[in-house]
Amino acid sequence: MKAGLLIIGDEVLSGNVQDTNSSFAARLLFANNIPVQNILAVSDTEEAIKDGIHFLMDKVDLIITTGGLGPTKDDITKVAIASYFKSELVLDMQILQILEKRYAKRGIALNELNRGQAMVPAIARVIPNDVGTAPVFWIEHEGKTLITLPGVPSEMRYLLQNELLERLRDKFVNEAIVQVTLNAIGIPESDLALKLAIVEEKMEAANNHHEKYKLAYLPDLNCIRLQITGVGKNKDLLEQHVKQFQDEIELLAGKYIFAIGTETIASYIGKLLKERGATLATAESCTGGYLAHLITSISGSSDYYQGTIVSYDNAVKVKELGVSQETLDKFGAVSEETCREMLAGCLKKFGTTYAIATTGIAGPGGEVDGKPVGTVWIGVADKSGMKTKSYFFNRNRVENIHLFSVSALDLLRKFVKGIE
Amino acid sequence: MKAGLLIIGDEVLSGNVQDTNSSFAARLLFANNIPVQNILAVSDTEEAIKDGIHFLMDKVDLIITTGGLGPTKDDITKVAIASYFKSELVLDMQILQILEKRYAKRGIALNELNRGQAMVPAIARVIPNDVGTAPVFWIEHEGKTLITLPGVPSEMRYLLQNELLERLRDKFVNEAIVQVTLNAIGIPESDLALKLAIVEEKMEAANNHHEKYKLAYLPDLNCIRLQITGVGKNKDLLEQHVKQFQDEIELLAGKYIFAIGTETIASYIGKLLKERGATLATAESCTGGYLAHLITSISGSSDYYQGTIVSYDNAVKVKELGVSQETLDKFGAVSEETCREMLAGCLKKFGTTYAIATTGIAGPGGEVDGKPVGTVWIGVADKSGMKTKSYFFNRNRVENIHLFSVSALDLLRKFVKGIE
Repeated sequence: MKAGLLIIGDEVLSGNVQDTNSSFAARLLFANNIPVQNILAVSDTEEAIKDGIHFLMDKVDLIITTGGLGPTKDDITKVAIASYFKSELVLDMQILQILEKRYAKRGIALNELNRGQAMVPAIARVIPNDVGTAPVFWIEHEGKTLITLPGVPSEMRYLLQNELLERLRDKFVNEAIVQVTLNAIGIPESDLALKLAIVEEKMEAANNHHEKYKLAYLPDLNCIRLQITGVGKNKDLLEQHVKQFQDEIELLAGKYIFAIGTETIASYIGKLLKERGATLATAESCTGGYLAHLITSISGSSDYYQGTIVSYDNAVKVKELGVSQETLDKFGAVSEETCREMLAGCLKKFGTTYAIATTGIAGPGGEVDGKPVGTVWIGVADKSGMKTKSYFFNRNRVENIHLFSVSALDLLRKFVKGIE
Repeated sequence: MKAGLLIIGDEVLSGNVQDTNSSFAARLLFANNIPVQNILAVSDTEEAIKDGIHFLMDKVDLIITTGGLGPTKDDITKVAIASYFKSELVLDMQILQILEKRYAKRGIALNELNRGQAMVPAIARVIPNDVGTAPVFWIEHEGKTLITLPGVPSEMRYLLQNELLERLRDKFVNEAIVQVTLNAIGIPESDLALKLAIVEEKMEAANNHHEKYKLAYLPDLNCIRLQITGVGKNKDLLEQHVKQFQDEIELLAGKYIFAIGTETIASYIGKLLKERGATLATAESCTGGYLAHLITSISGSSDYYQGTIVSYDNAVKVKELGVSQETLDKFGAVSEETCREMLAGCLKKFGTTYAIATTGIAGPGGEVDGKPVGTVWIGVADKSGMKTKSYFFNRNRVENIHLFSVSALDLLRKFVKGIE
């Protein structure tokens, strides 16, 4: 059982509108064991729509179209569909009555364009649309199913979730799906893959006609989401095997895995600090406020986060964080020594449980002797000790800032949890 | 001349990753007169990729693939492409050397998986990739062109803009294109469109067989990029007309337009401050470091930016910024009075030419009487005066933080330039 999405509209092809319908639909369908095999965006011409249906008919069992169901001239989805299935467009009295009621409520008489919205292909079964005027319909043809949805994201989401999902599950779903996501940080994708090669081999060996297992790597700069998926008839068995693979991965790469599910490193740190009733402040140089931003992106962060001093200027490091001019002169701003003094100053100023400090060179300018662009010293501390570490990233300015900040949060994670 | 995008990756089909590459590429290509005809997302299996290429080969002249170029097992784009074109994968010495150098710089030896990244189809021409390890290549076959790009958005964007666009224009575009982008801020898209309706009418009237003009609105939260495009044979004439339309737009909406071209409000502020030899510091509450991050995202910002105090906790507002407890008790943290005291404290602490302060409620929690989520007080000051203003945005937390910060930079722009 496979689904395909046909996204109809020139606004998507010109890049003027970011299509978010397909990822929403794909996620919802995937979670309900109706995996999407193809997403195809086409122009709103009759020919392009028919070509798209033709392509997908060959590949999938279920086609869901979005867009092109409005009342205006460029909305020709149903014309194309009727033509593809060699079916006539007929006036659907049920839709017409709903439209008349809806417009009457607003005190408006139906015009010719609105009335046209009640026309649907004769072979279609109409699905109630409580949230708009687009005609939603379901066609069965030679073992394949085609469903139309409007392009307006809120309507599309509502209708897919509330009107279609149960009907689709009833018709299509006869396998279970079990999925676990592990979030890893601080290791390159290829190194992680080498470590986990043996698990992948075991997954392949476990694949048979009844169950299929897969490990996907979803990298996002230096975070990697590891997704274990099992599909098959026997949900208990799938759960048992997926758990087994998860345990093996944690055994092999546990120290890189900071959370399960949709957690980010910032939300994980938030949970960790809340659990311990701990507070945090930061002293940033090269990260320029981005570390604070990652932390404060989390709703409720004011419970544990006190603030940051961004000392972009060295004079601010001296005045606000108590870094000594001597240290700056002798070791430079980007040094373990400066980082340690920033940490001490930050702890003293804010009186928090933990402090983080960053000092480095995000680039492209600012390279100094022996310290190339991309170098950073990061430190974390509490009242009983500190841990500092230097990192090197070879990216552009914005990515370096991101990597410095995420690494800083990861260093705090390891510090709090006592991971070496 | 038509292009097609082939988006490769199960993470897109499962909805786990929102594909933003295709809308970026579509917009850039469209603006350069290479319209995208189809966007097709396929699974990372050899068969699915080959099917996708086959479908697009039939429809378009240029196929750009994204994704599946990493070092791990599930990255099989080039295997599928080599198989589709019946070409062998061969070791490309140029890529291998670059990879070796890059890894040597980090002090790491190439492993088997990384070495595999230097394998490309024999018929391909390699395109330099300065921003990553994915093999980027260009294939010409029976009048059609296929190009590979990595799936990581930042790499994909960089390579498309900096390595491919000019090559593509040279090959595919035989008409001149003249384009000017005006960056507007602080006005809703629909209001701006009403103001500029007359310019759009003039553009339509100027369209004929030889020249075409178009005004595109590319909104990005509360910034709007206004793109005037002229396409035709006679470049001089296009330039003359586009300049004319630009002048009319500036006449009608000049006070909302802060820059021309690829400028952002942060880079514009940087230029403005540098020109005047001025310096800046910030005092942030609700923006939580994001305002500092926008400013320090600009390379060279250390020339004018001194730092920020993020006072997420009210105690920090009192201690670090000299906000009086009385003011906080009487008017609350989110008030004009607190904002003014934050400004005064910030100017005093940093001794800069200008200061910005923000205090508001990003949400979803934190609503107080008469101050709904999305309310913010923003202020800017120099030694001779201050200007404060309240704003209200109705978005999610991350978007509110962004809108607060961009509005703060815009308020500084108006303050420095004396715009009411």
